[in-house]
Amino acid sequence: MPAERITDSRTRSERGVSRRHLLTGGVAAAAGAAVALGGDRAARAMVAESESGRADAAGSSIVPFFGAHQAGIATPPQAHAVFIAFDLRDDVDRDGIRRLLVLLTDDAARLTAGRPPLGDQEPELAEHPANLTVTFGFGPRLVERVDPGKVPSWLGPLPSFGIDRLEARWSDGDLMLQLASDDPVTLAHALRMLRKDARAFTTVRWVQPGFRRAHGTEQPGATMRNLFGQLDGTVNPQPGSDDFDRLVWVDDAGWLSAGTSLVLRRIAMDLDAWDELDRPAREQSVGRTLATGAPLTGADEHDEPDLTATNAIGLPVIPAFAHIRRARTGDVRERIFRRAYNYETPEGSAGLLFGSFQADPERQFVPIQRRLDELDLLNVWTTPIGSAVFAVPPGCAEGGFIGESMF
Amino acid sequence: MPAERITDSRTRSERGVSRRHLLTGGVAAAAGAAVALGGDRAARAMVAESESGRADAAGSSIVPFFGAHQAGIATPPQAHAVFIAFDLRDDVDRDGIRRLLVLLTDDAARLTAGRPPLGDQEPELAEHPANLTVTFGFGPRLVERVDPGKVPSWLGPLPSFGIDRLEARWSDGDLMLQLASDDPVTLAHALRMLRKDARAFTTVRWVQPGFRRAHGTEQPGATMRNLFGQLDGTVNPQPGSDDFDRLVWVDDAGWLSAGTSLVLRRIAMDLDAWDELDRPAREQSVGRTLATGAPLTGADEHDEPDLTATNAIGLPVIPAFAHIRRARTGDVRERIFRRAYNYETPEGSAGLLFGSFQADPERQFVPIQRRLDELDLLNVWTTPIGSAVFAVPPGCAEGGFIGESMF
Repeated sequence: MPAERITDSRTRSERGVSRRHLLTGGVAAAAGAAVALGGDRAARAMVAESESGRADAAGSSIVPFFGAHQAGIATPPQAHAVFIAFDLRDDVDRDGIRRLLVLLTDDAARLTAGRPPLGDQEPELAEHPANLTVTFGFGPRLVERVDPGKVPSWLGPLPSFGIDRLEARWSDGDLMLQLASDDPVTLAHALRMLRKDARAFTTVRWVQPGFRRAHGTEQPGATMRNLFGQLDGTVNPQPGSDDFDRLVWVDDAGWLSAGTSLVLRRIAMDLDAWDELDRPAREQSVGRTLATGAPLTGADEHDEPDLTATNAIGLPVIPAFAHIRRARTGDVRERIFRRAYNYETPEGSAGLLFGSFQADPERQFVPIQRRLDELDLLNVWTTPIGSAVFAVPPGCAEGGFIGESMF
Repeated sequence: MPAERITDSRTRSERGVSRRHLLTGGVAAAAGAAVALGGDRAARAMVAESESGRADAAGSSIVPFFGAHQAGIATPPQAHAVFIAFDLRDDVDRDGIRRLLVLLTDDAARLTAGRPPLGDQEPELAEHPANLTVTFGFGPRLVERVDPGKVPSWLGPLPSFGIDRLEARWSDGDLMLQLASDDPVTLAHALRMLRKDARAFTTVRWVQPGFRRAHGTEQPGATMRNLFGQLDGTVNPQPGSDDFDRLVWVDDAGWLSAGTSLVLRRIAMDLDAWDELDRPAREQSVGRTLATGAPLTGADEHDEPDLTATNAIGLPVIPAFAHIRRARTGDVRERIFRRAYNYETPEGSAGLLFGSFQADPERQFVPIQRRLDELDLLNVWTTPIGSAVFAVPPGCAEGGFIGESMF
């Protein structure tokens, strides 16, 4: 199938120009670009591109697909995400995996640019990318089939924790895609296109949709509230900072260089039991106020908590069991970058799709989780029911594909 | 429970003033309003109200709850909706129903104004209403328990159609709430609050979430595309017009005066089979072009189709089996107001939550559906799997409750 695909050989700057023209309604430019495709596919692509010129800023925002790192990691979190994991069919070998990744890369690159994949029969649904990103992650079985010597030591299930109640239907997987966009129709369409690509090579293992505040509801950069009403993710390295780069990107000579890892935990939250707690008890369990997210020893969300402060009768203001005390570390390398989404099912269960990116989950994620497993009052109301670890390869340039450094 | 509730006796204009103050950050006004509540509830409400003053325009947009008609009907469709149906518990009598409706009205009025319900332990999640609306509908059993003489002749299951493959788990119900908002977190929180209200009185029969384009993705007023890629709802009476008012609002001396009815059909769409059709075949099946939604005899979406036009060999340009020909009527009263949402499940099934409002479903909806049932090419790819009809009572004034005219 990939062999039939047309490779777009224009350079990035040529594309940049043509894309800008399209976004300002340059139908003539679209017609020019379409010549390279031919037939009704071209006509369809042209329709879609000229349509996208009519969209307003929010719908037409594009996050570049190509680059040193994959998009969807340092990208400000979009309103909607869906995580999907596939299991490889038994007969899909190294070459099959390569074909699958070429195909997915090609379609993801088009969709994230607001252009329909070549086989797309509903090209109008691809018109408004609304910051669509597609991020690839690999499970151990996929890497092993390509090259058993390339499986990172940390790639596999996390050590089991006492609080875990993991279910296979939310755990593991050979290939994971994180799709995210500010528009739910765009996301549904992109998911369908990529599911179709993968159908001949894989079976679907699980699909987990999640949501945050809509684009425009809050100030950009505001910390998300989870469904417990807590500000979630206050202490998080800032994308673009050296700190972020050191913590997130793999920095070695291997195939994962400039890549990272994703730990995705499905954490059920017992909202009914949480309801029985009053606000002071809730604030003690976390160590922060609910209204502003400030530590109990501070006034603003980003104030440094004072873990030594005591109250009038000599007890710590931030209790020993408080989440922020347990999650904290004195080791600057033992930190992760969180990019979480809320989830809710029609049946009424709810929780957090806790996604974190880090260069090495064993060194960065596991020690934090161990401390929380030992003693964290939030464990009373939260239960991990799914868990997966993926190797997240670096980005690629045009003409390349995600995962190519593994081959 | 309702007896414990505090009735806010301010007039609408007083509220309007105080709300404007709050939305421009008037914390002093919030403190004043909070005095009437007392205790930590007041503190919580105040926090939430002052917080909402910091939200930007999209998040703080409010659709008035009180009025002659319920909100969520003539309201421009928000990005997200969830329809939930409850069945009354056997021991809930006329007085119980009244208590339930008072409770739901009170909480819906608060939530839609960006204020937490009195028992809300996560008041911060109510801060950004983002055009939240809550619309109530009653099934026949609820009306009958209040007053058997008040059940409209049309309130009950629709006649069965040949194409129907209805499942009980998506059909009927005693009480329906349509919640809709541009923000998914707001919607999740509001749903949870109202589910809690209803818990002692009802069991949940079904929950159906749906989505459209995000707020800001497209121009306001753009016709929605469904997951077939079709513009869906081109021919629709315009809210605010006399035509809309005549078709939608009940105009008699009964308890439903200024109310309406909701027909909600869950229509599964077979996207895989649809994929096998090329674009010309798709356009023939509907009678419109996919790119612009124009009739095959026209150039613009809102052009009047010419049903008599023939092609070079004398065949009709818009085929006999085309959806727009079959859905069409010569009787101006045989029309409905559509307000549909897309749906998609993690398992990959998808379709349309076809919601339509009309004064009399028997006279307006059924004849259209009969014609489509007899002959409509779209029936090959679409299957109704759920169906419900609800009486939608008029709106209410402050101090009143939705459904009061039935008592």
